[in-house]
Amino acid sequence: MHDFYEVLHDDFFTSGLNMPGIAFNQFGVTVAAANVLTLPGLNTLGISLVRFDYPPYGLNAPHTNPRESEILVVVEGTLYVGFVTSTSAPNEKNRLFSKSLHPGDVFVFPMGLIHFQLNVGKTKAVAFAALNSQLPGLNIIANASFGSHPPINDDILAKAFQVDKKIVDYIQSQFESNNY
Amino acid sequence: MHDFYEVLHDDFFTSGLNMPGIAFNQFGVTVAAANVLTLPGLNTLGISLVRFDYPPYGLNAPHTNPRESEILVVVEGTLYVGFVTSTSAPNEKNRLFSKSLHPGDVFVFPMGLIHFQLNVGKTKAVAFAALNSQLPGLNIIANASFGSHPPINDDILAKAFQVDKKIVDYIQSQFESNNY
Amino acid sequence: MHDFYEVLHDDFFTSGLNMPGIAFNQFGVTVAAANVLTLPGLNTLGISLVRFDYPPYGLNAPHTNPRESEILVVVEGTLYVGFVTSTSAPNEKNRLFSKSLHPGDVFVFPMGLIHFQLNVGKTKAVAFAALNSQLPGLNIIANASFGSHPPINDDILAKAFQVDKKIVDYIQSQFESNNY
Amino acid sequence: MHDFYEVLHDDFFTSGLNMPGIAFNQFGVTVAAANVLTLPGLNTLGISLVRFDYPPYGLNAPHTNPRESEILVVVEGTLYVGFVTSTSAPNEKNRLFSKSLHPGDVFVFPMGLIHFQLNVGKTKAVAFAALNSQLPGLNIIANASFGSHPPINDDILAKAFQVDKKIVDYIQSQFESNNY
Amino acid sequence: MHDFYEVLHDDFFTSGLNMPGIAFNQFGVTVAAANVLTLPGLNTLGISLVRFDYPPYGLNAPHTNPRESEILVVVEGTLYVGFVTSTSAPNEKNRLFSKSLHPGDVFVFPMGLIHFQLNVGKTKAVAFAALNSQLPGLNIIANASFGSHPPINDDILAKAFQVDKKIVDYIQSQFESNNY
Amino acid sequence: MHDFYEVLHDDFFTSGLNMPGIAFNQFGVTVAAANVLTLPGLNTLGISLVRFDYPPYGLNAPHTNPRESEILVVVEGTLYVGFVTSTSAPNEKNRLFSKSLHPGDVFVFPMGLIHFQLNVGKTKAVAFAALNSQLPGLNIIANASFGSHPPINDDILAKAFQVDKKIVDYIQSQFESNNY
Repeated sequence: MHDFYEVLHDDFFTSGLNMPGIAFNQFGVTVAAANVLTLPGLNTLGISLVRFDYPPYGLNAPHTNPRESEILVVVEGTLYVGFVTSTSAPNEKNRLFSKSLHPGDVFVFPMGLIHFQLNVGKTKAVAFAALNSQLPGLNIIANASFGSHPPINDDILAKAFQVDKKIVDYIQSQFESNNY
Repeated sequence: MHDFYEVLHDDFFTSGLNMPGIAFNQFGVTVAAANVLTLPGLNTLGISLVRFDYPPYGLNAPHTNPRESEILVVVEGTLYVGFVTSTSAPNEKNRLFSKSLHPGDVFVFPMGLIHFQLNVGKTKAVAFAALNSQLPGLNIIANASFGSHPPINDDILAKAFQVDKKIVDYIQSQFESNNY
Repeated sequence: MHDFYEVLHDDFFTSGLNMPGIAFNQFGVTVAAANVLTLPGLNTLGISLVRFDYPPYGLNAPHTNPRESEILVVVEGTLYVGFVTSTSAPNEKNRLFSKSLHPGDVFVFPMGLIHFQLNVGKTKAVAFAALNSQLPGLNIIANASFGSHPPINDDILAKAFQVDKKIVDYIQSQFESNNY
Repeated sequence: MHDFYEVLHDDFFTSGLNMPGIAFNQFGVTVAAANVLTLPGLNTLGISLVRFDYPPYGLNAPHTNPRESEILVVVEGTLYVGFVTSTSAPNEKNRLFSKSLHPGDVFVFPMGLIHFQLNVGKTKAVAFAALNSQLPGLNIIANASFGSHPPINDDILAKAFQVDKKIVDYIQSQFESNNY
Repeated sequence: MHDFYEVLHDDFFTSGLNMPGIAFNQFGVTVAAANVLTLPGLNTLGISLVRFDYPPYGLNAPHTNPRESEILVVVEGTLYVGFVTSTSAPNEKNRLFSKSLHPGDVFVFPMGLIHFQLNVGKTKAVAFAALNSQLPGLNIIANASFGSHPPINDDILAKAFQVDKKIVDYIQSQFESNNY
Repeated sequence: MHDFYEVLHDDFFTSGLNMPGIAFNQFGVTVAAANVLTLPGLNTLGISLVRFDYPPYGLNAPHTNPRESEILVVVEGTLYVGFVTSTSAPNEKNRLFSKSLHPGDVFVFPMGLIHFQLNVGKTKAVAFAALNSQLPGLNIIANASFGSHPPINDDILAKAFQVDKKIVDYIQSQFESNNY
């Protein structure tokens, strides 16, 4: 009984979170994910993990995770992070909670709220984040608003963002040509 | 036993959804809500109801409800509505599902997704919407992104929306002065 | 980007709640439902919507929804509504909470409790109700007790309702011949 | 370490299910319950247990448990038990599932459905039932319908049960005088 | 309507809990189970029931149920039962809650905690237990630790249990030869 | 709007996961935790994070987390990890799933199952683990079995582990003197 048996069962194992993953946005941020697609044993367990690598000034742009909360730990570099509260009555304000994080710092992004991370250091930054879903969803605010397929009508966006339609059309064209 | 007893218990009753509620955005849309704040008996039951009134061209701007799904029925007028799907892998697209709705039409906005309604008729529009939360939350995308307190740094927004910082500053100033 | 794209996807859309639905009981009440059978996009979302039309004196007879809570808004006419509390100890009483509702009034029927609505006006009444299930179930108390297939033994019902078996047999025959 | 330590902590212990409990209806059925009121350690755990004793012809009258499912095992005597299905569309029937049970037989009553047990033997019957709630609720159909406080209007009940109001008034008076 | 209809539907019925079930460990304890495998109608309902028979000195050895809580009632004999609390900080102690139970006594084993029952009488003991899962899982601590397939490395177990590897090897060989 | 506002709110922030935490067992393993005790904003969100540091041959001894699943990523060193399946029928075996992990490897420990990690390298190892609970519980198998307060009776343990009571007494005395 002295052996270290290794029972190979890929359902409960994945690898690759020791290095940057694949690019997922136009700011050079990469993601390596351990979710139910790469780690099938997570099915029904309600948890998953990602590694983010941010180049200097790399931004994980404002986004929501539609069905899960997130806890993030910085392992290298300096990240400026924040989230904006939702409101439950017309006269409430959207409040920003934000902070610069250094290695070992941990931050929580509550379910469904708009949040972001920006590398504000001169060197790369690395973080791990866990989410309580086996397959987290992602709404990048600008991309979903200005780069959907087909696009949202520019009248709607012009009103919502309080800018001229020409600006909306310009932003939409940016997302069209720069298609991440 | 011929009486219609009325056992008054305000916990299970509220009123006022026969007329427009209070303004909740800059486009003239109003909301009258029956949630746990006005109907305490909803506590722990996981459901609530709102009435929306939209003036011509009134917009319920792109937003998410962070913790609940929504089902909406049009009772008067014509609404153009839609939602944008989230993504679960870097190469997925944000897809728009949208439709013009007439009285009696019903649409569903799945949990956590960006969605909107626009009155595209020349007369007012009215809708009821139910949400499976006792106190739904609201993230209006443009307001939470450009009008939070304190504001999100304009570098972050300029990168995210792929526009010049001057445009970001302009949009932020709009939300500041036009404070809904 | 000036188009109002309409991405047709019937999964998230249904229609017909602008008019009375189909008859569902012997008192002329009709129901038009937007649930997972007519709106497949509701799958897993835990919400649905119905429109009720009540002729004068039309009754939605005492019933329970076995797995969901309900919130109801009156849009036309006058409804007398109520629910009866459950008990958790032998010496507790079943209490009735009831009220006459007018347009704009909202009432909540907590999960699993016996409840009813009666049109007490001289004109038709209309209400919308939302339930936090994708496919609500319905137990109409009298029908399930006296009109099941096969019927419940009349000894059981005579004891339960404290009446002579002849009365039970008479009620059962009513439900048999009048089969809604 | 040879002791059988007894760490007295009443939160996780209760007693008395070796004998009949207290009467809870007019048919001689008694209940002894181990729920969160008698066994506080059940708090948040979502389970409880009861012992039922039925005299000959004793009836646990048709009722629903509004928020939980039930599993019952007969330990003595013969019980005739059943439940009635709910419906999800106007043209569905309420179906009765029923069976005579002998010692060792187990039956399940799904959440929210009308069900009953009748001792059909000449001797007493005993059963244990478990419910997945820390404090199950109980709606006895006849009592909640005809014996609530205050009573439901007799027009409503006459229509629902398809009988003359005089019969409703008679049944209501029975529940009033025979107040369990 | 005088018949006691018996609608045979095996999905909601099983039998055999009036006698000892099948042996499930080396101490003579037997289990007769009504779970989703024998009673398919339990599917999605989150509850199940077992009968345990313990010969004199029969032991249901320390184990956990990984996903459910348990409530147990003694119907014959005397059981010494207990559970050990978990900890949430390094300096917390594992506390034992234990008690001798007699017929009619009820005890609760909270979700995921190590617990046991021992017949401390000279005659057989019988208990019913309900668990809030349709198919409870079982981790017998000693068997899972020393008798898994393949075995856990003996260095790990020697360290964990603070004994010499020879003792670990001896225990492992016991579980191998005595394979329940 | 060029400022990087820092809205200090300790509820959503904690620090210290860049270095080993406090010792939590006798094998030199340390833990630094970000759970609801150190990060109150996690309340109701159902997620938390820990950092483990393992000296050479450091063991996180076989244990269960009673109410949550765990996902672990190795960031330094080599860990041999595994879990043992539970059983749902008397004739099922407890199966071991195990593997040696290197930096970037990810493993999942499903809810309630016995699992362990051992540093099998000659240098320290470091891992992050996320659990879907705001305050994970811990049952260290050997400690809860042999070191509870008060201790479990040695007859029970001797039977369960199939060893002589003298060995049980010896193991119990080890845990008593070596009190972690």
